[in-house]
Amino acid sequence: MKTATLLIACDDKPGLVSSFAQFIAANGGNILDADQHTEHETNQFFMRLVFDTAGFALDEPACRSALVRLSSNIPNMRWQLFMGGNLPRVALMCSKTAHCVYDLLVRHAMGELPGEVALVISNHDDLRQVADHFGIPFTHVPVDKDNKQAAEDQHEALLAEHGIDLIVLARYMQVVGPGFCQRWAGRCINIHHSFLPAFVGAKPYHQAFERGVKIIGATAHYVTAELDQGPIIEQDIAHVGHHASVKELTRLGRDVERQVLARAVRWHLERRIIIHNNRTVVFV
Amino acid sequence: MKTATLLIACDDKPGLVSSFAQFIAANGGNILDADQHTEHETNQFFMRLVFDTAGFALDEPACRSALVRLSSNIPNMRWQLFMGGNLPRVALMCSKTAHCVYDLLVRHAMGELPGEVALVISNHDDLRQVADHFGIPFTHVPVDKDNKQAAEDQHEALLAEHGIDLIVLARYMQVVGPGFCQRWAGRCINIHHSFLPAFVGAKPYHQAFERGVKIIGATAHYVTAELDQGPIIEQDIAHVGHHASVKELTRLGRDVERQVLARAVRWHLERRIIIHNNRTVVFV
Amino acid sequence: MKTATLLIACDDKPGLVSSFAQFIAANGGNILDADQHTEHETNQFFMRLVFDTAGFALDEPACRSALVRLSSNIPNMRWQLFMGGNLPRVALMCSKTAHCVYDLLVRHAMGELPGEVALVISNHDDLRQVADHFGIPFTHVPVDKDNKQAAEDQHEALLAEHGIDLIVLARYMQVVGPGFCQRWAGRCINIHHSFLPAFVGAKPYHQAFERGVKIIGATAHYVTAELDQGPIIEQDIAHVGHHASVKELTRLGRDVERQVLARAVRWHLERRIIIHNNRTVVFV
Amino acid sequence: MKTATLLIACDDKPGLVSSFAQFIAANGGNILDADQHTEHETNQFFMRLVFDTAGFALDEPACRSALVRLSSNIPNMRWQLFMGGNLPRVALMCSKTAHCVYDLLVRHAMGELPGEVALVISNHDDLRQVADHFGIPFTHVPVDKDNKQAAEDQHEALLAEHGIDLIVLARYMQVVGPGFCQRWAGRCINIHHSFLPAFVGAKPYHQAFERGVKIIGATAHYVTAELDQGPIIEQDIAHVGHHASVKELTRLGRDVERQVLARAVRWHLERRIIIHNNRTVVFV
Repeated sequence: MKTATLLIACDDKPGLVSSFAQFIAANGGNILDADQHTEHETNQFFMRLVFDTAGFALDEPACRSALVRLSSNIPNMRWQLFMGGNLPRVALMCSKTAHCVYDLLVRHAMGELPGEVALVISNHDDLRQVADHFGIPFTHVPVDKDNKQAAEDQHEALLAEHGIDLIVLARYMQVVGPGFCQRWAGRCINIHHSFLPAFVGAKPYHQAFERGVKIIGATAHYVTAELDQGPIIEQDIAHVGHHASVKELTRLGRDVERQVLARAVRWHLERRIIIHNNRTVVFV
Repeated sequence: MKTATLLIACDDKPGLVSSFAQFIAANGGNILDADQHTEHETNQFFMRLVFDTAGFALDEPACRSALVRLSSNIPNMRWQLFMGGNLPRVALMCSKTAHCVYDLLVRHAMGELPGEVALVISNHDDLRQVADHFGIPFTHVPVDKDNKQAAEDQHEALLAEHGIDLIVLARYMQVVGPGFCQRWAGRCINIHHSFLPAFVGAKPYHQAFERGVKIIGATAHYVTAELDQGPIIEQDIAHVGHHASVKELTRLGRDVERQVLARAVRWHLERRIIIHNNRTVVFV
Repeated sequence: MKTATLLIACDDKPGLVSSFAQFIAANGGNILDADQHTEHETNQFFMRLVFDTAGFALDEPACRSALVRLSSNIPNMRWQLFMGGNLPRVALMCSKTAHCVYDLLVRHAMGELPGEVALVISNHDDLRQVADHFGIPFTHVPVDKDNKQAAEDQHEALLAEHGIDLIVLARYMQVVGPGFCQRWAGRCINIHHSFLPAFVGAKPYHQAFERGVKIIGATAHYVTAELDQGPIIEQDIAHVGHHASVKELTRLGRDVERQVLARAVRWHLERRIIIHNNRTVVFV
Repeated sequence: MKTATLLIACDDKPGLVSSFAQFIAANGGNILDADQHTEHETNQFFMRLVFDTAGFALDEPACRSALVRLSSNIPNMRWQLFMGGNLPRVALMCSKTAHCVYDLLVRHAMGELPGEVALVISNHDDLRQVADHFGIPFTHVPVDKDNKQAAEDQHEALLAEHGIDLIVLARYMQVVGPGFCQRWAGRCINIHHSFLPAFVGAKPYHQAFERGVKIIGATAHYVTAELDQGPIIEQDIAHVGHHASVKELTRLGRDVERQVLARAVRWHLERRIIIHNNRTVVFV
């Protein structure tokens, strides 16, 4: 079955659900999944529509034109249309730590992720054999304090060359530049190894140990120029007792990190997420 | 804001979301919350619509008539309309165990439940003072093996007298009769103190201890004539270690029971649940 | 069965488990529960021993004298002995919010808490009837910015009069003074309605909503003069989606708050907690 | 640091903790971790002692002899001593499903498992390249209804040849024979993809879908001749909504399976488990 997904955000007013549903139906699409949310605090309307395009009268350009016309009457309407059935293409960026990379590549190999992992980029060469094992191209782009711009240029060239739609920072231990963040806004997911906003910055498990918390967490968020401050997609936690050393916290944390990151990546690839005011609406 | 809720289940076909949304919009209602699910295995369409009735042109009888006409063209359409703003009226049935009764009455008093707890019925007199404290009428209806039918008749009379819409068996330790189950089908929620279908029947915590499980659970379900086999609304668990005696399992279980029951009751009162083939669709 | 509990913390060295176990055995006590933990990072030894005192040769003063002698050979040994079987006496301090007070008093009534709730103190009169219902003395001590010291003096007098061992701040919405904190160090538990160290201070659910977190939490901790910085006893969380308004977060948070607080209070009353360096060892 | 672990189960009587701790201390061992549990229902005493053997006077044979003497005075004492520092050797048995195998081998590669994965055996050849990638010997032993005994003989020969201490059935889709179960009693861990005792047998996710449960689970247990009835080591669950098809339940279940299996395997390798009457004591 070929499907398309339409994500909509706009100011709320009466008749919106009907308008959007009618737009699909009038053109012969069959809605398979509809989810809608109104945030009363901000008078914002959010909707996700998945529809069968078997009998749909519009091709992608025609549908985009029609949506432009439709949106002209609806205040502050932003929309995203995903049509045509090409799988989104994903790049993983990593350093030396293997668990998130393995996790995503195993899920990819088992058909869990509705995307094509097309590239692995790392500032170290350690995980080359992991990418090789799964048959994914690997490029080593060393980064040091003197070549940051050159490295970023090489990243952009690689991402362009491979037609990448989504970047996943799978424990990539370098801060990415503000320009890069802006260009990839809403298309670059990071996993932070704490329950944000607690323990922003470096060594969160050491911070957690020092504070004596009874829970550790992980947070997947879209990357923004301000470190660890981007829109949160998913969070989860593990309970920890007094037995847990920093090493143990790190081990327990790995399980949370990979679960949280995998969920966030899948939801993005399934077009379930709308960003609004540094927060996310996630239709699950 | 006055709102109405429409729950729909029918065979799936193209255009349904549009039809239902248009029905609301064409009559001047503003949809506040729309959620839709298609179960592909059974080709079933489910939808929940909450709409603002401020500008809605139809009163309740007119809306019902219109829905009857609408449904005549849609195969196997069943629908429920909740309009008019009267809070659903709830009866609690209990025995001697207090925790679920306290939990629901505290939530009621704090305004968490969108319903009116109008009556407490018990086969023992022990919890009368609890009902008194919260200002809820309490009736003691003793039950023994010789008066089961008379007790059931008295239950029905009390429920009718108080205009009850929903019965909650809050650890009521009597099996309710098949006729009662049928009359209250989909309107009587029970809490079973195990993770069904494990440990059906009596003394589930003893069974759990014997089997050496590492998790105990609770299950809220609609009551049917077949014991512990009705449609499941919600389940949750607590982790337990080898330290836990049966007494300890019972104590830990209480927390799970009341949380699970409270969630199920609130979802029912918020009109979030559609029953289909002994399973539930719960729009949360 | 009459039991005693001995909590020990000291610098680690060989033979400690044997010494302490032998001390109990040599005096005729039967160890029912032994738990021991060594924190290698700080070379600290922690132990909890529960023993049957039926055949124990020492009464409490003799046992204390013996422990003083024993500890003189063990560097930095601190110990707490709970003997004699008197239930610890608990005071609840609250304001207008009822859920934690109800939760603790229901547990108390059901025999879940190994302590005697002897007193409820509030800066408002709202919850008097709740205390009355459970038969617990209630005192209204109004607090405003001009009478803080007088109120604190009245608190201390009431706590002394009722022989209180543990204070539970069950959503008490006043900051307690530094002198009070110091006098009740390790004997005053607060529930903070966030996952500390995130969202310190006022209105944590509003902060959580603003940040768009996908999890809310609660933290039970011993009170210290520095606000929300005391040793953490227990934490837990609930998952929240984009549907959750601040009001909804508040409602969901209540369930976490009362569960976390109840666990912390029970563990304290069961003498399971040792404080060390602003962190807790909790033997569960 | 070289350590030894001693696991003890026996009938309870006064002085046991002291006896065992003194046995270690008198021979110059330093206890690093002591955990003890008395099951009052059955009057059983359980203990786990980890001690530093740097200054320990006894070598392994001497220690075993001493324990034999010690146990002669203690009714129904069973003990296990793990000394000498050789890592336990682990064999994985699998079929075509990769997720548990990958999970354990990634953990092994990252140093999370205190054992040596020495062998992978499969009734299919599909996962050979996975074992190759991690550098673990792989043997394909086809099994059909006519060669079951021959296959079992080959298994035993391989296990003997590689000096295997623990077998992990990592989604091995064959029933193992009763003789095999008996010989490997307490040394063969299986992962069952349901929350036992619910959904014993084949296709548990299909059973779960049919019953409309709101939770799915996984259970790690020691294998016994009676299918899915062995002592449970660990269980966990994931919440599922009405959206979840059988395929989705299967995907969600995989995450639970691998987490639960990994925990059980690690606890076994860390010598934290004592089996008693088809139940487990797990010192964590």
